[in-house]
Amino acid sequence: MESVFVLVPAREARAVRVDTGKRFRIQDVEGGQVVDLFAFAANDVSEYASAEHTRIWVNRLFPRVGEEFVTNRRRPILSFEQDNSPGIHDMLCAACDPTRYELLGAKDHPSCQVNLMRAMAELGHDAIEIPQPINLFMSVGVEPDGSLTWGPAPTKAEDDVVFRALLDSVIVASACPQDLNDINRFRPSSIGVELLPD
Amino acid sequence: MESVFVLVPAREARAVRVDTGKRFRIQDVEGGQVVDLFAFAANDVSEYASAEHTRIWVNRLFPRVGEEFVTNRRRPILSFEQDNSPGIHDMLCAACDPTRYELLGAKDHPSCQVNLMRAMAELGHDAIEIPQPINLFMSVGVEPDGSLTWGPAPTKAEDDVVFRALLDSVIVASACPQDLNDINRFRPSSIGVELLPD
Repeated sequence: MESVFVLVPAREARAVRVDTGKRFRIQDVEGGQVVDLFAFAANDVSEYASAEHTRIWVNRLFPRVGEEFVTNRRRPILSFEQDNSPGIHDMLCAACDPTRYELLGAKDHPSCQVNLMRAMAELGHDAIEIPQPINLFMSVGVEPDGSLTWGPAPTKAEDDVVFRALLDSVIVASACPQDLNDINRFRPSSIGVELLPD
Repeated sequence: MESVFVLVPAREARAVRVDTGKRFRIQDVEGGQVVDLFAFAANDVSEYASAEHTRIWVNRLFPRVGEEFVTNRRRPILSFEQDNSPGIHDMLCAACDPTRYELLGAKDHPSCQVNLMRAMAELGHDAIEIPQPINLFMSVGVEPDGSLTWGPAPTKAEDDVVFRALLDSVIVASACPQDLNDINRFRPSSIGVELLPD
């Protein structure tokens, strides 16, 4: 099998089917870009990668290469195989959504949640639960008092991460359209999703 | 209005309707007991208190008196009005469920997730999403490297917390049945839910 590279334009998302055992790569094409990644079990999308279950599984706040992500039914769905980036990824924050932008003064702003819903609807899944995403390349820090700090994605152009599907999965990668704070350096850009050959 | 005190037996849960503006109290009756607290909008239970949205709202990992909890639609649903406890509460961990206990070697063990589903089903809500709970009195620490530590609930008998509903709500409080680690000091016990007079 040859690899298939899907370019996801800035502010958009794409869904890709990944069979059990197959690997895929998420690339930050231009650098400094957060990717909201979701993974659903292909045969029942009410099962999906869950941050609150994964935190217990790995006993850590944030994802790290060599570890697994589990679903809301505590089944491993993705393994994190390679990290060719600074290794900064968030697993605390909800996807941005229209209300988030309205509260920031921006109506009709694109969002990762609507991107996700559209990508899944195109596959016939009209009424999904909205999981908390894995926020690749997103820099969230925790101070000793438990308060959170936010910073720009520390990636450079062509940094990437590689995952292996442990269940037949539909993954959705959204190029986060947030341009009202510096998490994408005020300049949302494109990402890539590549299905890798065996 | 007189207050109404609902005793929740060890390992069980109860749902209580709380109208907008009303206050309720959650008591750790005997001490050392974690309470999984859920809050749903009464008129549409697909809207509920969401940990991943609240973390962004308060910019903190863990709940603190004086702050609000918001829903998955970013609307304030509860305010945290009083804390007569050591102030240790978790907002990172999924509810325990049958799979969690099976993985620990215990089949047919009671769980907060099944408690929640039963309590909501009794109100006619048969197919709810399972939110991540607010884990009152649950001691989860974060090490500088991002790893998590677990400890026993630090509460003493009759410690309590008080919340005010900011939406018409159905709240569910589950006396966590976990007895295979020390979060409840290996001795799950009862809790109380009290609707407070104006």
